Amino acid sequence: MPRQPLYAQIEDALAVRIRDDLRPGDRLPTEDELIEQFRVSRITVRHAIQNLVTRGMVVVEQGRGTFVARSRIEQQLTALTGFVEDMEAVGLGASARVTTSEVRTADREAAAALGLPAGGKARFIERVRLADGHPVSFDQTWLPEDIGAQVASEDLSEEPIFRLLEEKYGIPLLEATYRLEAIVADEGLAARLETEPGSPVLRVARTTFTTGQRPIDYELLHYRGDLISFTTRLTREPPA
Amino acid sequence: MPRQPLYAQIEDALAVRIRDDLRPGDRLPTEDELIEQFRVSRITVRHAIQNLVTRGMVVVEQGRGTFVARSRIEQQLTALTGFVEDMEAVGLGASARVTTSEVRTADREAAAALGLPAGGKARFIERVRLADGHPVSFDQTWLPEDIGAQVASEDLSEEPIFRLLEEKYGIPLLEATYRLEAIVADEGLAARLETEPGSPVLRVARTTFTTGQRPIDYELLHYRGDLISFTTRLTREPPA
Repeated sequence: MPRQPLYAQIEDALAVRIRDDLRPGDRLPTEDELIEQFRVSRITVRHAIQNLVTRGMVVVEQGRGTFVARSRIEQQLTALTGFVEDMEAVGLGASARVTTSEVRTADREAAAALGLPAGGKARFIERVRLADGHPVSFDQTWLPEDIGAQVASEDLSEEPIFRLLEEKYGIPLLEATYRLEAIVADEGLAARLETEPGSPVLRVARTTFTTGQRPIDYELLHYRGDLISFTTRLTREPPA
Repeated sequence: MPRQPLYAQIEDALAVRIRDDLRPGDRLPTEDELIEQFRVSRITVRHAIQNLVTRGMVVVEQGRGTFVARSRIEQQLTALTGFVEDMEAVGLGASARVTTSEVRTADREAAAALGLPAGGKARFIERVRLADGHPVSFDQTWLPEDIGAQVASEDLSEEPIFRLLEEKYGIPLLEATYRLEAIVADEGLAARLETEPGSPVLRVARTTFTTGQRPIDYELLHYRGDLISFTTRLTREPPA
């Protein structure tokens, strides 16, 4: 291996210290202390810290200091569940801010997911989902027009869509397909998630089915990458 | 909704055109053509394109133009599989470049995953994993020292570790825990994945178990977010 640049050596040394000696929420030494400890320039210390921010290992709180990042919320990816259920499972209170609710022409992915013809219309709802009052996910939901009209008349800042479908309208939810991707937030998404542009986002495209394999709900969920992880357990299948 | 800034309007218009009219690999109009079509400044067009790059919808190929991004490789997240099996399942040839193989003190996560005491040592292997010759994942593997010594003596650019464990050493792989997160690449990770710093990365922490619930392999897999998605299907469980 070629010798690493100085900032990378400091970054590695701090990463080891964070992993081995510090706990989430602990404060790192100040810039001045790190300059003294490592006998390097301020620009080198800043570069190392910036990389640790990028890696999600530390967070800088303006005027307060640099802190070891807290653990992400671990969300089970083992059964079809909605946001409210997921947050309740880890002891967090879920709420929502509805920012859009309108009928619009479904884009290609939404039309394909809901089985609509090209140019078909659907109810489009955007919600910022909050855990204990902090934005965790930005959800774009597409619903078939008939169900969408019902859902749109409800108070979605209080009522989760899954509960409405299952309990109020008697539409059973049986299963869902999931596609998970890593993206970075652009300005608009970052503003909704109250984070910085360029921050990591775990995007989940989920199509939920009711009886008769009928797709009933297509959602694009944009989770803050620094706040959420998904966990599952998979078994080995014998080679074919 | 407040009126969007101009670049965001262009971005949205292009996103709709990409979704509805264009196919992966299609070339977008040139900057000059977009300036003409939308009657906006070059800086506005560039801002819009940059956001589409950030969203993973287009890729800029220097000197050639801007193209609609190709679909990600869809990797099933339904059974415990290794990289070579995953790539073969979608018709891609897998290979690897080994960049590190050494015994080192396990960091806190690796020690916890492998059930080592604090300060315990393990075999640490770093590999760039390639699909049809292109880097797709950067894998950091931790193995217990006894198995690690055997594995380290093999040609890991050719042999997947799963195949060695199962077929050569007779160590059955039964199941694994997975944790999925979105992060962004720092300089070092970006260089290994041959992408730009700030690019999205889907990080998977996987602990694989053999008989007797013994952890046998802890891997941190860093997938290029623009190249890979994970898909699964989950069923609804009756409310508790």
